[in-house]
Amino acid sequence: MSSLLSTIESPADLRLLTRAQLHPLADELRSYLLESVARTGGHLSSNLGTVELTVALHYVFNTPDDRLVWDVGHQTYPHKILTGRRDQMHTLRQLDGISGFPRRSESEYDTFGTAHSSTSISAALGMAQAARIKGEDRNAVAIIGDGAMTAGMAFEALNNAGVAEGRLLVVLNDNDMSISPPVGALNRYLAQLMSGQFYAAAKNVGKQVLKNAPPLFELAKRLEEHAKGMVVPATLFEKFGFNYIGPIDGHDLESLIPTLENIRQLLEAGSGPQFLHVVTRKGQGYKLAEADPIAYHGPGKFDPAVGLKPPTSTPKTTFTQVFGQWLCDMAAADPKLVGITPAMREGSGMVEFERRFPDRYFDVGIAEQHAVTFAAGLACEGLKPVVAIYSTFLQRGYDQLIHDVALQNLPMVFALDRAGLVGADGATHAGAYDIAFVRCIPNMALACPADEAECRQLLSTAHEQNHPVAVRYPRGAGAGVAVPATLEGLPYGKGEIRRQGRSVAILAFGTLLYPALKAAEKLGASVANMRWVKPLDVELLLELARTHQAIVTVEEGCVQGGAGGAVLEALQAEGFTLPVLTLGLPDVFIEHGDPAKLLSMVGLDAEGIERSVRERFSAIVDASPGLKVVA
Amino acid sequence: MSSLLSTIESPADLRLLTRAQLHPLADELRSYLLESVARTGGHLSSNLGTVELTVALHYVFNTPDDRLVWDVGHQTYPHKILTGRRDQMHTLRQLDGISGFPRRSESEYDTFGTAHSSTSISAALGMAQAARIKGEDRNAVAIIGDGAMTAGMAFEALNNAGVAEGRLLVVLNDNDMSISPPVGALNRYLAQLMSGQFYAAAKNVGKQVLKNAPPLFELAKRLEEHAKGMVVPATLFEKFGFNYIGPIDGHDLESLIPTLENIRQLLEAGSGPQFLHVVTRKGQGYKLAEADPIAYHGPGKFDPAVGLKPPTSTPKTTFTQVFGQWLCDMAAADPKLVGITPAMREGSGMVEFERRFPDRYFDVGIAEQHAVTFAAGLACEGLKPVVAIYSTFLQRGYDQLIHDVALQNLPMVFALDRAGLVGADGATHAGAYDIAFVRCIPNMALACPADEAECRQLLSTAHEQNHPVAVRYPRGAGAGVAVPATLEGLPYGKGEIRRQGRSVAILAFGTLLYPALKAAEKLGASVANMRWVKPLDVELLLELARTHQAIVTVEEGCVQGGAGGAVLEALQAEGFTLPVLTLGLPDVFIEHGDPAKLLSMVGLDAEGIERSVRERFSAIVDASPGLKVVA
Repeated sequence: MSSLLSTIESPADLRLLTRAQLHPLADELRSYLLESVARTGGHLSSNLGTVELTVALHYVFNTPDDRLVWDVGHQTYPHKILTGRRDQMHTLRQLDGISGFPRRSESEYDTFGTAHSSTSISAALGMAQAARIKGEDRNAVAIIGDGAMTAGMAFEALNNAGVAEGRLLVVLNDNDMSISPPVGALNRYLAQLMSGQFYAAAKNVGKQVLKNAPPLFELAKRLEEHAKGMVVPATLFEKFGFNYIGPIDGHDLESLIPTLENIRQLLEAGSGPQFLHVVTRKGQGYKLAEADPIAYHGPGKFDPAVGLKPPTSTPKTTFTQVFGQWLCDMAAADPKLVGITPAMREGSGMVEFERRFPDRYFDVGIAEQHAVTFAAGLACEGLKPVVAIYSTFLQRGYDQLIHDVALQNLPMVFALDRAGLVGADGATHAGAYDIAFVRCIPNMALACPADEAECRQLLSTAHEQNHPVAVRYPRGAGAGVAVPATLEGLPYGKGEIRRQGRSVAILAFGTLLYPALKAAEKLGASVANMRWVKPLDVELLLELARTHQAIVTVEEGCVQGGAGGAVLEALQAEGFTLPVLTLGLPDVFIEHGDPAKLLSMVGLDAEGIERSVRERFSAIVDASPGLKVVA
Repeated sequence: MSSLLSTIESPADLRLLTRAQLHPLADELRSYLLESVARTGGHLSSNLGTVELTVALHYVFNTPDDRLVWDVGHQTYPHKILTGRRDQMHTLRQLDGISGFPRRSESEYDTFGTAHSSTSISAALGMAQAARIKGEDRNAVAIIGDGAMTAGMAFEALNNAGVAEGRLLVVLNDNDMSISPPVGALNRYLAQLMSGQFYAAAKNVGKQVLKNAPPLFELAKRLEEHAKGMVVPATLFEKFGFNYIGPIDGHDLESLIPTLENIRQLLEAGSGPQFLHVVTRKGQGYKLAEADPIAYHGPGKFDPAVGLKPPTSTPKTTFTQVFGQWLCDMAAADPKLVGITPAMREGSGMVEFERRFPDRYFDVGIAEQHAVTFAAGLACEGLKPVVAIYSTFLQRGYDQLIHDVALQNLPMVFALDRAGLVGADGATHAGAYDIAFVRCIPNMALACPADEAECRQLLSTAHEQNHPVAVRYPRGAGAGVAVPATLEGLPYGKGEIRRQGRSVAILAFGTLLYPALKAAEKLGASVANMRWVKPLDVELLLELARTHQAIVTVEEGCVQGGAGGAVLEALQAEGFTLPVLTLGLPDVFIEHGDPAKLLSMVGLDAEGIERSVRERFSAIVDASPGLKVVA
């Protein structure tokens, strides 16, 4: 442990340091961070970029009494290290370890849990208003990246905050890179603010002003003159009612600290909402990450001296890759196919599609609402949009799915990646609810492929329909089933019997088919691969209901209102009252950890399924072990 | 029928008129509109404000080949009258009549169904991109109000559109009034654009330029100079990459037509996205509506010569009023209560609350995402937010409900007005899905009061909890049960037996308790008022399951994944397999019409419930008529 960092158990310790000590502290912090992430894996580039900003914010503001709200939150490792969690960094993103995002339950310094982007200004404004109402003497600070700023929610908050009283500072951490390269007009505008003459001038002005250190109000006035009058007439953020300051170098503590000190005084003098534009570089201080911040966005474990190495063994094909390949193949076959992503080109497997079909590729920025309705507009004109969106982010476009897509019954495909548990990212990113929230919408169909081959086939089936269809598949690799090269689909709305057993019929929705098959071996149960939650294969269901004494449903999604619920509803509608056991994710938020371990914990591995079935249907199972397997 | 208007069967007829004829046509259109809405009820102020703009757009653009997308769409009556639906205006918003919003199924001129706000730019951009990809020679025009422009979705679309190629025009219909008075920084900014010097100068410049009618490019250049250099340096919309033109008078056809003609040429010359700022007045041309546009926003039938009259009989208390009164009373009792509305002060019954507690009232604009997370920020600081939001609009804040509220288990109340069918507004506004999409979220609770008294009581219960609770209630009045003055709640998570019968137990969730009781009289059935969907009163459920041969659930919400589904899941989890009939809204979008009639059509009135129960459980019902009534 290096000397300065080891003395910091909380920001109060940090605030005891001299200004001169902050630079070596930041260096130590950066080294510690790099070593730590190299050992555990996790987000790297973004955290290397926020080292100095984190030091400066905790040095100037009286945390936790002043509230820091970190947007997205994957850049909070330096914050975690400085707020008493240094020695827990080795447990990062692991089961029972600390989260990769801020969590209110983890620390009083984590004032608001984040992970989905663009929530910070809303939350911080709420905190600032609460302080005003309660007469409490505190500041609220939102720290938001330029990528997150493109989401509508951030604008809704800016629009509201600009006219509200209260002590709110928005720090724009402008690193010109969200996870995918930045897109959109705002980004172009920010680049313009920073470019050439203006940035250089502003930088010099800032430094000069700060070195002379005039009294607060004169400084503020001069800054204002420079920002508003002399350099540019008025920034976009001033039009929203903020006092805009910047851009300043976010790695230069000599700029950051006095600027933040002045802003703090402005806040405390009742000068209204403040906006600080800070320029940082993702990967700062680690040459390899600076050169390729995307590769180092969220690496696994690696040796910092060597950097990332190509994998020695060929990794298993992921569902994301299956989707990416299907998208290219179908686009080649169907000139009407267009692909839309809300800033998830890499995560959704669309790099190759963009390269081959740039004209039909749309990265609309972090803007899920717009993504869905924009695609609806394309569909109205006879194109066939494929919206690639994580299950958890479709929650952001839910109204648009109902109001713009389903109500108008537009033919579109939603490729829902990361359905089910997601592992290290935890509860915020779990795709646990899509079955429940999609199947209640009229006109929608929802498929859940059991493996890689079916993923491709069901995407083809979805693409053939004349109404909206969602296809959900989990993060990572599946059972390893070879993917066909053709674009043939599977029958719409039809499942299949995979194992003919007796007494108990297990109906699997999605990739849990494979542990269900294993469990069925032990149980002598039948297994159906249902493939479709909606429309449900009622014919198959009734056949199984007629020939078995009990039904078990298995899905990687919430039990409440999920596929099991659809089975219950269908059986009752047809007058069947046999016992049904619905297995799925329990009604709690499930924290981060190894996905296989988590599935095991909630009883969704083969052993868990077998155990649950035996517990509920012991009499039936024990009475009739059957073992016939369908080829 | 007046002479000019009667000749217009489609916009093609309109385009045969001379420029000089357009002014009298607009006058006729306005008169026809006023008479028509006075006869049917419907939206008035907004439509009076768009008469000239509608005439001008259809005159200049080649509709339907050029695409007009009307944001929100309640201002499209003039559009409907000019596009072949003049003679159907008397059926407006009535069962089997034309919709109060654009509907793709209704006319080829309705290019995109709208009703929820702020979708138009996204959809029009999609259409413009599709035309580009398909090589089609058409323009796409989004017409959006200043209120709708505050929603994040509009900004997401602007941000994307500003850098996209394609022939897109955004017309900002700036009338300085959404349904509630406008709020937020954007609105203040627009007011500034229009105020004093600048507006006057721009107006004169525009007229002068247009009168001289120079060739296109010179005109464009001069307009640009004036807009960008001489008058103001650069508008916000230019920062988003648009060519900003305006503001111009939206009631002056002499400004509108030549400006739109020039813009059309700019679009066709490949000059990139265009932005026209048009200033209109809600209620224009009808003095009473001009004076009170809020009262005339959506009136019932009235005599245009007299105007709206106070109702002769005292109207029944609505659930909205019950909420408004409760909010004031609870705010008086609990200084920690804060009230949040996304631009629905009137609709949500918060006028009195704002008057009495201005410091604790937050209208955040049309910004549901922000509303929910802003409230979460308030809750983090120990305040007790009450978010008043229509069921259908909570769809816009769904991710925030999961990610910011439920995951952090913050104590908050969601007052979900307009749950169930809403009548004249139709499918877009139906609160049909909230039970399904809320009950699948961990930590959430959901109550559905059966009547006005319970609405108040369950709001109090919700407010007492230490986690998030939603209370859903329908539009309009209920059974007419007297509302208590106290703030006492009802037991959390507990229902009650309202009628002791035999054989069949009807479990009612919400206001359909009353028709269920009527049906039960005929059926000899028991009736439980369940009150809570989540947590479900499992104890009560099991008691009924043990003592009855069949269960019937009744709810005004989608059957898929709804309260009936919760009952099925709970029974199976407890090992009960008796037959269950789940009654609720079917899996289709239900169009506009009289709510009572619609409920009857889907079998959710007393007769329908009785009929469904007899159909499904004839043997059970006929065998045992029981008639004991619990006091």
